[in-house]
Amino acid sequence: MRIDIATLSAHLEKVRTLAPLVHHITNYVTVNDCANATLAIGASPVMADDLAEAPEMTRIASALVINMGTLNARTIGSMLASGSVANACDIPVVFDPVGVGATAFRSDTAARLLREIRFSVIRGNASEIMHIAGMDVRAKGVDTGCVQADFEKTISMLQCRTSSGTIYAATGATDVVVADCGAALIENGHPAMARITGTGCMCTSLIASFCGAGVPPFEATVCGIAVMGIAGELAYERTAKEGVGSMRVRLIDEIGNMSPETLERRLKITCEKR
Amino acid sequence: MRIDIATLSAHLEKVRTLAPLVHHITNYVTVNDCANATLAIGASPVMADDLAEAPEMTRIASALVINMGTLNARTIGSMLASGSVANACDIPVVFDPVGVGATAFRSDTAARLLREIRFSVIRGNASEIMHIAGMDVRAKGVDTGCVQADFEKTISMLQCRTSSGTIYAATGATDVVVADCGAALIENGHPAMARITGTGCMCTSLIASFCGAGVPPFEATVCGIAVMGIAGELAYERTAKEGVGSMRVRLIDEIGNMSPETLERRLKITCEKR
Amino acid sequence: MRIDIATLSAHLEKVRTLAPLVHHITNYVTVNDCANATLAIGASPVMADDLAEAPEMTRIASALVINMGTLNARTIGSMLASGSVANACDIPVVFDPVGVGATAFRSDTAARLLREIRFSVIRGNASEIMHIAGMDVRAKGVDTGCVQADFEKTISMLQCRTSSGTIYAATGATDVVVADCGAALIENGHPAMARITGTGCMCTSLIASFCGAGVPPFEATVCGIAVMGIAGELAYERTAKEGVGSMRVRLIDEIGNMSPETLERRLKITCEKR
Repeated sequence: MRIDIATLSAHLEKVRTLAPLVHHITNYVTVNDCANATLAIGASPVMADDLAEAPEMTRIASALVINMGTLNARTIGSMLASGSVANACDIPVVFDPVGVGATAFRSDTAARLLREIRFSVIRGNASEIMHIAGMDVRAKGVDTGCVQADFEKTISMLQCRTSSGTIYAATGATDVVVADCGAALIENGHPAMARITGTGCMCTSLIASFCGAGVPPFEATVCGIAVMGIAGELAYERTAKEGVGSMRVRLIDEIGNMSPETLERRLKITCEKR
Repeated sequence: MRIDIATLSAHLEKVRTLAPLVHHITNYVTVNDCANATLAIGASPVMADDLAEAPEMTRIASALVINMGTLNARTIGSMLASGSVANACDIPVVFDPVGVGATAFRSDTAARLLREIRFSVIRGNASEIMHIAGMDVRAKGVDTGCVQADFEKTISMLQCRTSSGTIYAATGATDVVVADCGAALIENGHPAMARITGTGCMCTSLIASFCGAGVPPFEATVCGIAVMGIAGELAYERTAKEGVGSMRVRLIDEIGNMSPETLERRLKITCEKR
Repeated sequence: MRIDIATLSAHLEKVRTLAPLVHHITNYVTVNDCANATLAIGASPVMADDLAEAPEMTRIASALVINMGTLNARTIGSMLASGSVANACDIPVVFDPVGVGATAFRSDTAARLLREIRFSVIRGNASEIMHIAGMDVRAKGVDTGCVQADFEKTISMLQCRTSSGTIYAATGATDVVVADCGAALIENGHPAMARITGTGCMCTSLIASFCGAGVPPFEATVCGIAVMGIAGELAYERTAKEGVGSMRVRLIDEIGNMSPETLERRLKITCEKR
């Protein structure tokens, strides 16, 4: 397993040239940030969550995001139906299992989505991904750290699961992307990102933007996480004196300004073969 | 048909003096931006979408916005009932047919709203307005360009329709406002506005703010579009080095700071008699 | 009744050390701002509104916010069930009766919530709190001033009601916090805050963040209002040349940067014994 950085930065141009339509069924907390992050990277966001149209909207999209934040009974059917259409049409589906493990409702819904939909990528924080991998993690709301010791075990467990072809990504201090053939560790980002709501959700939207431009899921995941992490570093550097409100604004600036050169220069990635 | 620029800038003062209450039944993607844009221009936003109260809230409002973004079955009844109350009470209703043409659900709902509610103004992007005018436009999600050739034809078709008194506005590189007695072309704005979600929705809220202050619909539409476009130009000029995240913040600044002098100095408008 | 300012600033450190989970059932207009304000003060926000999980999420939270903005039939049951769980588990509940008095739906719902849930704190603007206190106030949407003459009477009425232990806070030009043993007047803040949507909602989230860290409700309310007001002053001072969009961003910066020293230096509080 090898990542060619020049290839990654070429993917960035691809998103901007193709401007893929990325359909989101997502939460109302961070939805505006997801839309702006999607536009900033060069893709085109659409949000439609009613069962009467979500599957039809999915059909004209290039990628689908299913994000479980503010999960509610009304939209679960839309998620299932849209995921099913996406699978039938070979449209990549990216899953963000926000808060899985925090309540039975989220865990049960995630389990059902995992049973019925084939995901290209699943991205969450460490505890969410550990939960998905079958570990017994007690989540504290939707923002939670992970027990490092268990994490190595999680990666191994995920690698077994990736035989289905799904890419798993746990983002945090170190971002881990797991494929069946290996894993990548990304060391970009800044701790202050955890003080801004939606950095995880936006990362998921970026991954879906790359997927929607035809980038293979593993590379799309690395690209989305890399852009988010580097944008976070730059945003922090440029707003450290102001604070987290300014950093949040600057994050979108930096996603929009991301150049292949910046990506190549700042990316801190290590690849491990399985 | 003639637009007196001094009159337009007087309307700006009117909004700030009267601070009309603008009721929105709108989407959860850009709703915060709409509220802040409404406050910035000097009006007062309220958002209530439950059938149990939306018509009552409409009754105490000075204008009603019906915006189809994140359209869902739950709120269609609220839109119809609120529109009906507004019509009965002579409260102007502004319609933003977000994504009409993208799915049958949106097109059918738009058709029903058009049948049952008398709109003062309908504002959308070119493809949405062409769809409303009865052209067969295949929308790509909610952000789409238009075939320029067909556009002239659309304007003529819209002019026939405006016998009902509705003002049609298609915003984009050039903004077109069509009334039965003529049309206005506005050349303000900046292409970077398309990279920020909600610039269309905010424009609709501004139009409704002017309507709510008692400005006649044609002039209210010109005012709303002019303020949005000029704010976009100024925001771009002042944040070009930073990026689209900063531009989005600055847009609200510039709407809030808009002076009659700036409006008069920067407005690029051409009026055509029918 | 006496407020010790050193104690208040110690509470700030407590929030940052404990990072309490604050569960919100709130509106989709200002929810992102509430999440970011909660993170900025050092607490951890979660938003879950489906009846299938809201009570369970409440059980793992340290405080619950019930905010009536964009009130809808779907979530009233979640509010009642979550409030009931919070009461049973001694988790403080903070109520923001957005727009109460504007429609029968809001007034009836507020009345039902007041009957069935024991609130630690109720924060609103003056007209909302006067309505809650039983005065006949005709609200204009959700942003409204109050008749100063009636306000003194309201405070007396609230003091009678606080025998239940609930703290009442009416925020505006002067913020009033009423407990059974006395009241505090806070003179911080800036008029420009009224031109930004969500400053009230964010204030409620801050109060809940302090409650969630174990701060007694009266002091938690004073702390939340003080932080919001001082952040508003600082944000205005630093963005007066730019405008309200920039001020909104800076508000979050200043909440995040709030130090015990700043709080002690700038707080303008007067306490009155009953």
